[in-house]
Amino acid sequence: MSDSLQRIATVVGAGLVGAGWAIVFARAGWTVRIFDTLQTTRDGVLTLIEGNLRDLARFDLINEPVEKILARISVHADLGAAVSGVDYVQESVFETVAAKRPVYEALDTLAPAGAPIGSSSSGIPASAFTEGCKTRARMLIAHPVNPPYLVPLVELVPAPWTEVGVVDSVYKVMSDVGQEPIRIRHEVEGFVLNRLQGALLNEAWALFDEGAASAADIDKTISVGLGLRWSFMGPFETIDLNAPRGVADYAARLGPLYHGVAKSRTTPQAWNADLISRVEAERRTELSAADLDARRAWRDRRLMALAAHKAKAAKEIGS
Amino acid sequence: MSDSLQRIATVVGAGLVGAGWAIVFARAGWTVRIFDTLQTTRDGVLTLIEGNLRDLARFDLINEPVEKILARISVHADLGAAVSGVDYVQESVFETVAAKRPVYEALDTLAPAGAPIGSSSSGIPASAFTEGCKTRARMLIAHPVNPPYLVPLVELVPAPWTEVGVVDSVYKVMSDVGQEPIRIRHEVEGFVLNRLQGALLNEAWALFDEGAASAADIDKTISVGLGLRWSFMGPFETIDLNAPRGVADYAARLGPLYHGVAKSRTTPQAWNADLISRVEAERRTELSAADLDARRAWRDRRLMALAAHKAKAAKEIGS
Repeated sequence: MSDSLQRIATVVGAGLVGAGWAIVFARAGWTVRIFDTLQTTRDGVLTLIEGNLRDLARFDLINEPVEKILARISVHADLGAAVSGVDYVQESVFETVAAKRPVYEALDTLAPAGAPIGSSSSGIPASAFTEGCKTRARMLIAHPVNPPYLVPLVELVPAPWTEVGVVDSVYKVMSDVGQEPIRIRHEVEGFVLNRLQGALLNEAWALFDEGAASAADIDKTISVGLGLRWSFMGPFETIDLNAPRGVADYAARLGPLYHGVAKSRTTPQAWNADLISRVEAERRTELSAADLDARRAWRDRRLMALAAHKAKAAKEIGS
Repeated sequence: MSDSLQRIATVVGAGLVGAGWAIVFARAGWTVRIFDTLQTTRDGVLTLIEGNLRDLARFDLINEPVEKILARISVHADLGAAVSGVDYVQESVFETVAAKRPVYEALDTLAPAGAPIGSSSSGIPASAFTEGCKTRARMLIAHPVNPPYLVPLVELVPAPWTEVGVVDSVYKVMSDVGQEPIRIRHEVEGFVLNRLQGALLNEAWALFDEGAASAADIDKTISVGLGLRWSFMGPFETIDLNAPRGVADYAARLGPLYHGVAKSRTTPQAWNADLISRVEAERRTELSAADLDARRAWRDRRLMALAAHKAKAAKEIGS
């Protein structure tokens, strides 16, 4: 990170995603200013963050006392004051163009000229809500996975008018706070992460629809099968190691099978109401609606244990 | 497992997959007879297995001394002797119809009447090589992930003539040896695992081809993003927890985005020679061909550490 930075970030929008970002920056030693228009959200966010930090401490995922990290975070009702003199702004307001556009109009004049502004948008491209801004060259997508303090990937997606140097700067900011940024070179629907997830989900829904297997059995194909390698290697590295002479060898052997899979799905069906209700019915036999929250807490504890495991494995075995 | 079983299995074909199966059965206390037609393969297989068992011991993944597990395994040059009186046969010969058909013709008469015969085939359906067998009702696919002693999923895929009771029996055998069987209800190209992998791979190759991102960045989308949750939850459970009211709520919110992703890929392209060479070129800058074997050893150590982590997390946090 450049020495010229003061390491101050503003988080605009203090929902679950914004609160997660505040933890990412504060954990890395940055000063964090949280802005939200709603008083009830402002009043609750530090308690939410403190609870998450205590969970992280239990899994040895922070190196300082919870109080020391919390002390770096302040909450603001005035956007101008919140962004005054900061190095970076991460926006995480509700994901509609109508909600985002006025926020960017305000940041356009209020945020310091040199500060890049990244949006947590998971699907709407930056061009949809930054076009009219005078300083739109410093605006881009910085899409996290939830929660960002446990899943480090951040997709950086420039609008057509985003300056290359701005992408570089945000790449450095994300690396500095311990995230794993990647560069998407142009706007594409769903970016990369949700396109990959969507391709797999569409096939999973189609297989369920055809009666090939239960949702629980399709889930196992990933959770006790493909997902194990994918928790530390991507799909290209996986297949590169799955044929004696590497990825080209693999493509020669299995390319025709996968082309056959693609050719069998050239008339994509939307997930229709009947199909959705059948998946929902099976899921509710596995997990009642009343238990969803408890299961989310379980998921987060498993993600914390996995993060601790991955850090240890990378150190002892290599990454 | 029924008390009537003696817990004796025969592994037909002693390549990497067959050797892996021998470890699965012997680790679980079964007596294992390995058959292979090639003397060089027979001569080397126990050394290969012993090396793998010593690795497993280092990661606390076996509960007995290596020698005790090894002592349950014998190697045979005579198929009739190898299958005499066994409870189950797992076939893992070369994956062509030409190689498999004569093996099934021989097993048809040699294997005990009550013993199911599962094939490790990853793509060829059982109907392609068992049709002419008198006892074809006891033959099916039992497709593992490599190595099966680290990745527990087994896809059970019946041919149209496989008896339901045989699928149930093999399900019990697999559960008894600590694997995670799933039931595929009918033959489908690529079964479930490789269809899901193929859907994700096809999208990954297409995104690379369009210049959306580097192969390394696409890999990160999984290895530090989606793959973390998928190492302990499947895609349906993941999205069930990713919207406040569960999977139907998620489908209402994100179904249209994923339908858009599907509609953008209705003219599937084969992985062509130019595309393959560009992916290969990028992979070889990340990992030289000379380092492929060392990286495979790294992958297996990471899989072992992950298996140990998952067992601990399931016990302490729940599964």
